[in-house]
Amino acid sequence: MGHGGGGVMSAELVQDVFAPAFGGPALAALSDSAAIRIGGVRLAFSTDSFVVRPLFFPGGSIGDLAVNGTVNDLAMSGARAAYLSCGFILEEGVELSLVGRVSQALGSAARAAGVEVATGDTKVVEAGHGDGIYINTAGIGLIPDGVDIRPQRVAPGDLVIVSGAIGLHGVAIMSVREGLEFGVEIQSDCAALGGLVGTMLAVTPDLHALRDPTRGGLAAALNEIATASGTGIEIRERNVPVPPEVSSACAFLGLDPMYVANEGKLVAFVPRQDADAVLEAMHAHPLGGQAAIIGECVEHHPGMVVAHTGLGGTRVVDLPIGEQLPRIC
Amino acid sequence: MGHGGGGVMSAELVQDVFAPAFGGPALAALSDSAAIRIGGVRLAFSTDSFVVRPLFFPGGSIGDLAVNGTVNDLAMSGARAAYLSCGFILEEGVELSLVGRVSQALGSAARAAGVEVATGDTKVVEAGHGDGIYINTAGIGLIPDGVDIRPQRVAPGDLVIVSGAIGLHGVAIMSVREGLEFGVEIQSDCAALGGLVGTMLAVTPDLHALRDPTRGGLAAALNEIATASGTGIEIRERNVPVPPEVSSACAFLGLDPMYVANEGKLVAFVPRQDADAVLEAMHAHPLGGQAAIIGECVEHHPGMVVAHTGLGGTRVVDLPIGEQLPRIC
Repeated sequence: MGHGGGGVMSAELVQDVFAPAFGGPALAALSDSAAIRIGGVRLAFSTDSFVVRPLFFPGGSIGDLAVNGTVNDLAMSGARAAYLSCGFILEEGVELSLVGRVSQALGSAARAAGVEVATGDTKVVEAGHGDGIYINTAGIGLIPDGVDIRPQRVAPGDLVIVSGAIGLHGVAIMSVREGLEFGVEIQSDCAALGGLVGTMLAVTPDLHALRDPTRGGLAAALNEIATASGTGIEIRERNVPVPPEVSSACAFLGLDPMYVANEGKLVAFVPRQDADAVLEAMHAHPLGGQAAIIGECVEHHPGMVVAHTGLGGTRVVDLPIGEQLPRIC
Repeated sequence: MGHGGGGVMSAELVQDVFAPAFGGPALAALSDSAAIRIGGVRLAFSTDSFVVRPLFFPGGSIGDLAVNGTVNDLAMSGARAAYLSCGFILEEGVELSLVGRVSQALGSAARAAGVEVATGDTKVVEAGHGDGIYINTAGIGLIPDGVDIRPQRVAPGDLVIVSGAIGLHGVAIMSVREGLEFGVEIQSDCAALGGLVGTMLAVTPDLHALRDPTRGGLAAALNEIATASGTGIEIRERNVPVPPEVSSACAFLGLDPMYVANEGKLVAFVPRQDADAVLEAMHAHPLGGQAAIIGECVEHHPGMVVAHTGLGGTRVVDLPIGEQLPRIC
């Protein structure tokens, strides 16, 4: 299970098994989406499979995730998603009405994100070889001229901005899966980030890197960028927006919010001189109201993420090994 | 299970559930791949999930299928595949060496087809919720200028060409799955058709429609074209290339070769005046040596496929209802 968790084991699987077998230059960049060139235009291309359990949860469904997950991967290259493919793997015996409800949710999410579902496929497997509905989406979108967003562009001096409160998706899934109640219902933050990224790019096309901290949470996203860019990252923990209900739930469940999945947040690496203007634009967007500068990139401890704790100490923020929450998306 | 078989039940699922929920114009065309426009270029975009059992079979593997299935869907729009995405859903406990072997097969097939695996994703589900390895691929390719291949262009007078012997993939899967032996080992015809289509387009860009007869076999492909174009199709059964070992196996298994899946064949609808030249070019290509004109499009019985049997009679070739061979691809 750990190989699917977005941590060290996932990274090893990609680097040791998939990348050598497939061996293309676009894959080697290890971004959320690949930047490719075809017919003279520059596109972002990305895919995700969705195996979340349960299929419907507070704040969303597998249909919403299937759209927003891929739309967000494209947005992390600066691209506005234009077209999605959609492949269903259905388990024999799943109710058609459930397939219909998920499809409606997927269609609504696509319309909300301004993306067209252009092509699809359905396979059915025997009972006991699936779990109701699995969905794969792939998406393509145009990368605007002058935009070159990738981890390798991150450099010392860049400021690190997170677009809002972290930990909501993972805690929402866990609470409904385990039947836990935390006083207020915690809703997934599942949302499409193409519009927010567009707003940021309107301030400056020179965003260095973007990442949506899904599996493995903010900790995994920061570590991936630190490794790919070879810079150090320093975070001030008290600047990271963690809602009190997420803190309480994580304390109860023994989780660290830094490692909990998000499905409607991004972390941006922005040149220092542009950071205030980008932050201001984010605050004016519905999905960026709580955006905050949480740290900076530094020359020392290259490839390592260090957090300054609320108590005045420091700690290394590691890439998770396996996963703390299986089938979160 | 029938909803995954490529027959009437699959068509109903798409038309009654998916198409209304997603509601885009590209999907509505119901081609093997969608023709889309982005940044001023015209692309084919397609996806397929692969759940074949067993993962390795005579003549190929799920890795070969995952490449060739999507490459062929793109080829059916006249596009040469350029980039693939690849999403793995692994079942907990599957051996990493098996994942590695499948990945190697997939990478080799991609290199053979001249397509780059640009982006990927891996999810892991618990034992008992998968079956070793499921793979989804999506692909994009450029549609050449002047090419407009879609079922709606088929018209009375068009000739119907099949590129070679039918039934090999389905019989190969069945024989290994059921432990049957038919004297000679029957190998899957799994292959990438982009080169063959390129050869045909070099003769004339005016191919009307192409289809790769996978699930549901040649019968399903012909029925889909008849329905989408509103023309009648007449087939001469004795002109359809069925290898003797496929005939024997089908007789033994109670199958009709017309309904058995192929993974390296296409059926083309070609203007009558171009048909001989296209056929000649196909014969000169390694994947078209046994290409044959098997019938024609007619004005009577619109939307219906009729076969002239070897015995001098006629029969209606229906779209299959459900499926005769589950998890064939």
